[in-house]
Amino acid sequence: MLPDRDFFNRLADAARAETLPRFRSQLAVDNKYEVGFDPVTEGDRAAETAIRALIAREFPDHGILGEEHGASGLDREHVWVIDPIDGTRAFIAGLPVWGTLIGFYRGGRAVMGLMDQPFTGERYFADGRQSHYLGPGGPRTLATSRTEALEEAILFTTSPRIIAAEKLARYDRLEARCRLARYGTDCYAFSLVAGGFADIAIESGLKPYDIAALIPLIEQAGGVVTTWDGGRPEQGGDVIAAANPALHARALAVLNEA
Amino acid sequence: MLPDRDFFNRLADAARAETLPRFRSQLAVDNKYEVGFDPVTEGDRAAETAIRALIAREFPDHGILGEEHGASGLDREHVWVIDPIDGTRAFIAGLPVWGTLIGFYRGGRAVMGLMDQPFTGERYFADGRQSHYLGPGGPRTLATSRTEALEEAILFTTSPRIIAAEKLARYDRLEARCRLARYGTDCYAFSLVAGGFADIAIESGLKPYDIAALIPLIEQAGGVVTTWDGGRPEQGGDVIAAANPALHARALAVLNEA
Repeated sequence: MLPDRDFFNRLADAARAETLPRFRSQLAVDNKYEVGFDPVTEGDRAAETAIRALIAREFPDHGILGEEHGASGLDREHVWVIDPIDGTRAFIAGLPVWGTLIGFYRGGRAVMGLMDQPFTGERYFADGRQSHYLGPGGPRTLATSRTEALEEAILFTTSPRIIAAEKLARYDRLEARCRLARYGTDCYAFSLVAGGFADIAIESGLKPYDIAALIPLIEQAGGVVTTWDGGRPEQGGDVIAAANPALHARALAVLNEA
Repeated sequence: MLPDRDFFNRLADAARAETLPRFRSQLAVDNKYEVGFDPVTEGDRAAETAIRALIAREFPDHGILGEEHGASGLDREHVWVIDPIDGTRAFIAGLPVWGTLIGFYRGGRAVMGLMDQPFTGERYFADGRQSHYLGPGGPRTLATSRTEALEEAILFTTSPRIIAAEKLARYDRLEARCRLARYGTDCYAFSLVAGGFADIAIESGLKPYDIAALIPLIEQAGGVVTTWDGGRPEQGGDVIAAANPALHARALAVLNEA
């Protein structure tokens, strides 16, 4: 049996109950200083615990990879890939562009996914065929933009300052070709690409749980998500999402100019 | 007669009626190419027209400075300073961190102000004595954070890449001292400082209407807003807001190191 939309919604609701009450509550932040500034909130841990409990009860034979509580059963056919609060820096700064990411892999391929932003009340969900939106403005089926020219494209990245030096020149070439660049958005940017508002989202050094849920959201809305080299993005790394195949090809050509 | 909270709310509601229906509606964007990328939406113009009409009817002897439709009566005792959509780049990219800014000057000093984010349903208002918040999580009176050490401070700026080269070294020194930097937020960052979530918001090259409404919001919540040199910020320029006087003094010391 595969999970359905109702089950994804139960997972998101369980996470929301742990995250939203702690948002803007000036909670103590527990820093992982050994790897730079990487705050992990109580909400992050509690939300993942809640999600894992529901999965373990409903789908005991599925594997789980989570940001907070590690991996189990990654060799299974079905694996959940979870980031309870993607964008922890936004979360602790009070900025509502973090999200709960719940991805679902079958045979190593991302096939379903959900992104939830509890404060704005936005929920994005890819059901295996189509991507859907629920939030202010009402429910709708998502379609990516038709922007095919880089010169017309709106590009998002969390920050050029977290891109490693040897990759920055490649990123900078692409940013320079685009119409507009916006920083500071994490998963929210990828959801905007799925929704047809932004055209390109690009990041480097992602973990699988940073991108898992977002891959089907963008693909099932008409977009393309790959590594900077054009490979499958399920394992993270340097990832670029584009609104359509033509725009994606042009972006990759610029990233990989000799 | 001075404006009251009810009148500010009428202005914000009138603007909201023009902006929110156009947000994420894939409207045509009219670029002012001659000064770089500076999109101005129909919503921007229509919202300012609506605000100006209400002010002209209720307070015909007040001056008005608006981003879209220019200035009139700037030598009057009372002047409204308006940016109907601050953060137009966020607006066209679908990111709900733009805002409607309505500031009110008396004798050249910002004394009342409102920031409205219609999509998230957040409204910040400074009434001349206190700053107030209405939105998800319920109404409350605002107080800035007590963070006095730069090393604990969360700093926001729209983008280090729009800071002129001769100022960038000063900004970079400050960012390097802070715990965390977030990009891409415009007026929303200043509201987060007023709300006690962020500690520093810093920008360069602001127009008066980019900051007018935000000055009283931060001051009346306990914060300090000045130019990078410590002067009054009512005319814009290079502006820094900090959560409290001690943090502000430390930030200015770093900005102005010889």
